Amino acid sequence: MNPDLSNLFGYPAAFLTTIAFVPQAWQSWRTRDLSGISLPMYALFTMGVALWLGYGFVTGSLPIIVANSVTLLLASLVLWLKILEVRGGAKY
Amino acid sequence: MNPDLSNLFGYPAAFLTTIAFVPQAWQSWRTRDLSGISLPMYALFTMGVALWLGYGFVTGSLPIIVANSVTLLLASLVLWLKILEVRGGAKY
Repeated sequence: MNPDLSNLFGYPAAFLTTIAFVPQAWQSWRTRDLSGISLPMYALFTMGVALWLGYGFVTGSLPIIVANSVTLLLASLVLWLKILEVRGGAKY
Repeated sequence: MNPDLSNLFGYPAAFLTTIAFVPQAWQSWRTRDLSGISLPMYALFTMGVALWLGYGFVTGSLPIIVANSVTLLLASLVLWLKILEVRGGAKY
């Protein structure tokens, strides 16, 4: 393992997979168009990110804690909007 | 760091955030309803997952390679379907 080379991949990777949820959360909030969004995806993904956050605390990794806190907030927002849409009887 | 406790969080976390994209890819493929899906999200996310795959190769981590190969395939499929929808002039 080369720590310098791994950081060259790891930091932009963590940055991109975290901020990716900003445009999704913003679009879902603004348009309330959740029709193409999969409810099981966001249910599973949000649970997974919560576990990644736990992993960050257990391993004491600040980057993992920060990245997954942001993703957890954004993914939870999309999940919540999707649940509202499904409960509202809109097309799923 | 406690390796046993970290595995207790890490493995289910990796499993959930990976398989989460199965119902999304399946729903998008089956319905071709991509209207609520954010194009910038899937563009950024797919790039990020490709970098995570590079990180897995550089660090020699088989779980990271396997998880991100699956996610890369599924996220790329959703991105591709979204690009087809946008290029087809459908509502974005």
